Amino acid sequence: MSLKDKVAIVGMGQTKFGENFDMSYHDMIIEACWQAFDNAGIGPEEIQAAWLGTYLPFSWGYEGVAGVSLSEPLNMYPIPVTRVSAYCCTGMEAVRNAAMAIVSGEYDLVLAVGCEKMRDVPGRGSLVAQHVERGHPLYCKGRTAPGMFALLASRYFHEYGIDRRMLAKVAVKNHKHGSLNPLAHFRREITEEMALNAPPVAEPLHLFDCCPTTDGCAAAVLTRADLAKKFTDSYVLIKGVGFNIAAGYYSAQFDQGFSFTGFKSTQIAAQTCYEMAGIREPIEEVDVVELHDCFTITEIVDYEDLGLAPKGEGWKLIADGETYIGGKIPVNTDGGLKTCGHPVGASGVRMINHVAAQILGRAGDMQVDGAEIGIAHTLGGPGAVACVFALGAP
Amino acid sequence: MSLKDKVAIVGMGQTKFGENFDMSYHDMIIEACWQAFDNAGIGPEEIQAAWLGTYLPFSWGYEGVAGVSLSEPLNMYPIPVTRVSAYCCTGMEAVRNAAMAIVSGEYDLVLAVGCEKMRDVPGRGSLVAQHVERGHPLYCKGRTAPGMFALLASRYFHEYGIDRRMLAKVAVKNHKHGSLNPLAHFRREITEEMALNAPPVAEPLHLFDCCPTTDGCAAAVLTRADLAKKFTDSYVLIKGVGFNIAAGYYSAQFDQGFSFTGFKSTQIAAQTCYEMAGIREPIEEVDVVELHDCFTITEIVDYEDLGLAPKGEGWKLIADGETYIGGKIPVNTDGGLKTCGHPVGASGVRMINHVAAQILGRAGDMQVDGAEIGIAHTLGGPGAVACVFALGAP
Repeated sequence: MSLKDKVAIVGMGQTKFGENFDMSYHDMIIEACWQAFDNAGIGPEEIQAAWLGTYLPFSWGYEGVAGVSLSEPLNMYPIPVTRVSAYCCTGMEAVRNAAMAIVSGEYDLVLAVGCEKMRDVPGRGSLVAQHVERGHPLYCKGRTAPGMFALLASRYFHEYGIDRRMLAKVAVKNHKHGSLNPLAHFRREITEEMALNAPPVAEPLHLFDCCPTTDGCAAAVLTRADLAKKFTDSYVLIKGVGFNIAAGYYSAQFDQGFSFTGFKSTQIAAQTCYEMAGIREPIEEVDVVELHDCFTITEIVDYEDLGLAPKGEGWKLIADGETYIGGKIPVNTDGGLKTCGHPVGASGVRMINHVAAQILGRAGDMQVDGAEIGIAHTLGGPGAVACVFALGAP
Repeated sequence: MSLKDKVAIVGMGQTKFGENFDMSYHDMIIEACWQAFDNAGIGPEEIQAAWLGTYLPFSWGYEGVAGVSLSEPLNMYPIPVTRVSAYCCTGMEAVRNAAMAIVSGEYDLVLAVGCEKMRDVPGRGSLVAQHVERGHPLYCKGRTAPGMFALLASRYFHEYGIDRRMLAKVAVKNHKHGSLNPLAHFRREITEEMALNAPPVAEPLHLFDCCPTTDGCAAAVLTRADLAKKFTDSYVLIKGVGFNIAAGYYSAQFDQGFSFTGFKSTQIAAQTCYEMAGIREPIEEVDVVELHDCFTITEIVDYEDLGLAPKGEGWKLIADGETYIGGKIPVNTDGGLKTCGHPVGASGVRMINHVAAQILGRAGDMQVDGAEIGIAHTLGGPGAVACVFALGAP
């Protein structure tokens, strides 16, 4: 048995992503969720259970440490709310567990929410905390996310003969798409020259190769596929989902032959998702893609890990402009992490909602003509976890 | 549709609870999970998905922030592992979500684990963090758990005319039961005089009225009911489950008529669970109970909230000795939180496993003769969340 075609997304909502200094965590929950309720034509009292994805409750306040942080602002008692976290896949884990609960028959109408407040105060936990979880490269070894993904870029350049100019093309595309998205953190187009001349962060990654940290919240209302028409005629179905954990992080993956040019977690999650969805040739069958472009190099290796391009040839998709809106396989049509920003818990839900909007023809200036099947992908850990969703029309 | 009778627990494992200075988080995962695997007669490679409950990854290391913390020590790649947290209901949320996934048909054999390392270094997060989540009484207002539950005791004393001597009887019972449990944190019997003369923590609660903070891990292997016999002839079924969130915490509940003598979250979760399980008269139909005795007064109000005694008369159960092993309704037969200790994420799984052991006749010196139906209960938040499971023989 599988989830395929059993779960419908009937409502979607999202705050503006950005520096939401004027909004609390609770404010963002209220805005995104009420949008989703209105979109589904329901009130919060109809929701039977919910899943809340927040990765790091401690970076700002304690909000998000348990489901109560969703119940409270929505006054949505006494339904169960489960809080999940899974690095950058946190939002998708909320949707995935909500979907399984729908299929279990336990609930008919549920809410999945991702929320993260990141711009106010970063938390590092105790000094001891930074020296445990021995394998973790960021927490325990003083590495940084740009520093780790820079290794990926360097190795990819070495293996496949591209250079920073190809990364700049990814940034230019995603800024172009982001300029069309009223909810993106950055809405300014950039040129390749601007990207190439921007200050370095961790060579060969410069400023425009990195996604920002951001505040934001996104919410989705899910129901059984056979009940969807009760709420709306405009809904999408979950066609497939894969969530997988590969040998943890960079170091451990290195022990197991990590190539520094791709992620096993994405490869396995994509395979799991495609098998469920019945997708054999993603480049031919998928119309629109949201993928995890935490850095520009990540977008290029994601092309390959998601089976959109052969190994070592992902860069050709951006070189040929094929991942622009209007291209063969439009990618990150809302601007991606690069310009939407990356409020960790919210990103996965934002991606799923945007792919759904594309399929429903509601993507406005970002619309991909005739989008029928779309995928959404997050990668976290770094590298250890990945989640891939396939969505389609009923 | 409901979960009733669709999910079997076929394997159980638990570390010693206590000051496990000699064990890391990973060490505890390995010990509890391999016990559960051995118990189910399987290897980790047969598990298809897992749920990990850890409440506060930041109190010691970062372990538990995502499912990777389970994958790594068990080398259990690439299966999905979902991390959940829900205050003191964290462990039960792992089991509940695992059970829904089984019923969804997505997986046939899954693992639910609770793990918490609390004795090494307490974390308080950033100063800012302590001033947000405005409603939370412990994080933001400098209150303490003993201080909050002391209010409960004072009000209960005032309303129903008991005093500290009744609390001492609860402590004596749970220490008696804990003395029989090789895995308990404290295994020493105490007398009422010792409890009454112990130093005060927050009046009227003294030292023996409070559960300790503790390291520990517990694990359960779950499968579809119709597949259980493939693994073992000794298994229990989930008969009912309720997880509910009541208006958050003490303050908010006070606005809504909080009596300071009981918790709406437990009452609703019990009702949800009993309806699913078909339990109408819990005092007559339930044979053994594990409930959330974070403080001795909590055990007394839990009796009432769980429907084991009328309002204001819970204390009579302990006054009459009815909640001892051998009594009418044995409660916390493994010593409860009081003597097992309370490694937050692990406690819910420990309780479920102990009730299962009672039903399977494997509880050793703690065995309740003829136990067929048992319930397990956690309360967290404080007060905002509660979960109740009913277990029974096939």
